[in-house]
Amino acid sequence: MSITILGGGGFLGAKLARRLARDGRLGGRPVEALTLFDLQPPPPVDAPFPVRCLGGDVSDPAALAAAIPPETRVVVHLAAVVSAQAEADFDLGLKVNLHGTLSVLAACRALPSPARVVFTSSVASFGGGQGALLPDDARQVPGNSYGAQKAMGELLLADATRRGMVDAVSIRLPTVTVRPGRPNKAASSFVSAILREPLLGLPAELPVGEDFAVWICSPRRAVEWLLHAMAMDTAPLGADRGVNPPGLSARVGDMLAALERVAGPDARALVRPAPDPAVAAIVGGWPAAFTAERARARLGFSEQEPLDELVRAFVEDDLKETRRDRGL
Amino acid sequence: MSITILGGGGFLGAKLARRLARDGRLGGRPVEALTLFDLQPPPPVDAPFPVRCLGGDVSDPAALAAAIPPETRVVVHLAAVVSAQAEADFDLGLKVNLHGTLSVLAACRALPSPARVVFTSSVASFGGGQGALLPDDARQVPGNSYGAQKAMGELLLADATRRGMVDAVSIRLPTVTVRPGRPNKAASSFVSAILREPLLGLPAELPVGEDFAVWICSPRRAVEWLLHAMAMDTAPLGADRGVNPPGLSARVGDMLAALERVAGPDARALVRPAPDPAVAAIVGGWPAAFTAERARARLGFSEQEPLDELVRAFVEDDLKETRRDRGL
Repeated sequence: MSITILGGGGFLGAKLARRLARDGRLGGRPVEALTLFDLQPPPPVDAPFPVRCLGGDVSDPAALAAAIPPETRVVVHLAAVVSAQAEADFDLGLKVNLHGTLSVLAACRALPSPARVVFTSSVASFGGGQGALLPDDARQVPGNSYGAQKAMGELLLADATRRGMVDAVSIRLPTVTVRPGRPNKAASSFVSAILREPLLGLPAELPVGEDFAVWICSPRRAVEWLLHAMAMDTAPLGADRGVNPPGLSARVGDMLAALERVAGPDARALVRPAPDPAVAAIVGGWPAAFTAERARARLGFSEQEPLDELVRAFVEDDLKETRRDRGL
Repeated sequence: MSITILGGGGFLGAKLARRLARDGRLGGRPVEALTLFDLQPPPPVDAPFPVRCLGGDVSDPAALAAAIPPETRVVVHLAAVVSAQAEADFDLGLKVNLHGTLSVLAACRALPSPARVVFTSSVASFGGGQGALLPDDARQVPGNSYGAQKAMGELLLADATRRGMVDAVSIRLPTVTVRPGRPNKAASSFVSAILREPLLGLPAELPVGEDFAVWICSPRRAVEWLLHAMAMDTAPLGADRGVNPPGLSARVGDMLAALERVAGPDARALVRPAPDPAVAAIVGGWPAAFTAERARARLGFSEQEPLDELVRAFVEDDLKETRRDRGL
């Protein structure tokens, strides 16, 4: 089967590509070709099948037509302008997150039969705040443009699925933790930074209290969920193509305790309180927990591992590369 | 104040325009100018203020810039491809219902200060079916492209409101009954036809059973809601700019009993059962009732009048004109 990963140059896209290259199969069937597409052509991946690496704009129909050739059976649509950027530049967010998804649909409609489309939506498409435990049928009232654009994309792809144009699954990813890379300006940056930076031997600032809770998943688990969504039986989804996968609702204090268990008290001591009311105001609106019953009980999505394993997953999968990339 | 009605040539837009012309005021302030915009220039309205009648495509930015001049304070966005048409032509629905709303937002962003935008969304943006009593925070899982596109428009305008670009209210109109005009191919056509046709002395077919319930409002009530939304204090809406107004959940049997009370048993006898499983399958997915608590208790939307008054409203407001338009 032929697979295209849009946003294949990002950290999740690259992890997914490497995993497909390692497995050589998806859902019991051999992978015959892989296209990685991003703004810049993603680096090549060593695989037992041909890999094309293309650069282009996801909102450009011609670029997408090249990225989604007629034999494509699965499209993983990770290409997005992330939350902080979509908030800073409304038009760029609309262009990539909304018009990009419209272009993905247009390219998929040109295929001879409906492709599986796996769309990464987000926990940011919900409101609710710290007190919330959101059921699977919770209404999406996003408090940010990124979440609004993702919720619009979900509606578009669900309708296109109902019409038989595609066969879509929208996975509302939790805050992916521990993210490799560097601290950035995203309000959620600290969630990864308070684990990653101490594991690199560097200090990190904690802008919220230790009782603050966040809905998280590891990159490893996110890749498992994407692989599952790429091959799952979609009949049990019915009309609602959005999935809240079984992430983990974690208190910051518990994340730091896990850090200490895995890396010792010196690592834990590198995290210093630095209350930031602006960050707290933004992240305070995000829901901290979901029931995720449908994904668990009926759709076969695997459970996020406990916190100690989440920390160890970063050490095993990403620490060495992150150290090298950051010149440490 | 300057007002623009997009879709000003439709039956609701025309009624709203005539009402503004009669009142000369909105929310205690004088109306200074009115622009009516539709695919074809709407017929002029006799008013104590200047009225411009423009023709154009709602998805054309230049046409919208002309329709929404800098002094505009209120935009009523009724322009839409309706449900049956959006289902028959996916691209046309996207063009008008989604890209049209994007163009409305673009035109409003060019205004010197945020305009009130009243957007007519629809009960069709929900699923649920006959058994449902939908709360105000019900998730929108539309079973048709029209509803999906309306829900996307709601998300866009709510986000634009949060960003201070507009001040939007999205009213999810029930099935407007009694609609003037003729029976058409819309699955909901019978809801008006079983009242309108007998009042015109003509037969009508009933494709569902008498126990079938539908969430309705009169054109008169819809106009009151639009006027209220055009001038209301929007602060109590908070982040969720969608409103389920207090319509009426009516059984078909009760609608026919009201017809008989208003127009006699001969009128009632003109409605003949003609079960149509295809129509029943479509309309069976629509929710038949909403709590509408927020609109009633906190937002000041008026209550739909009982069925006898709904029937009499058509006789008083629209029977003569409908008879003339149809050459009866």
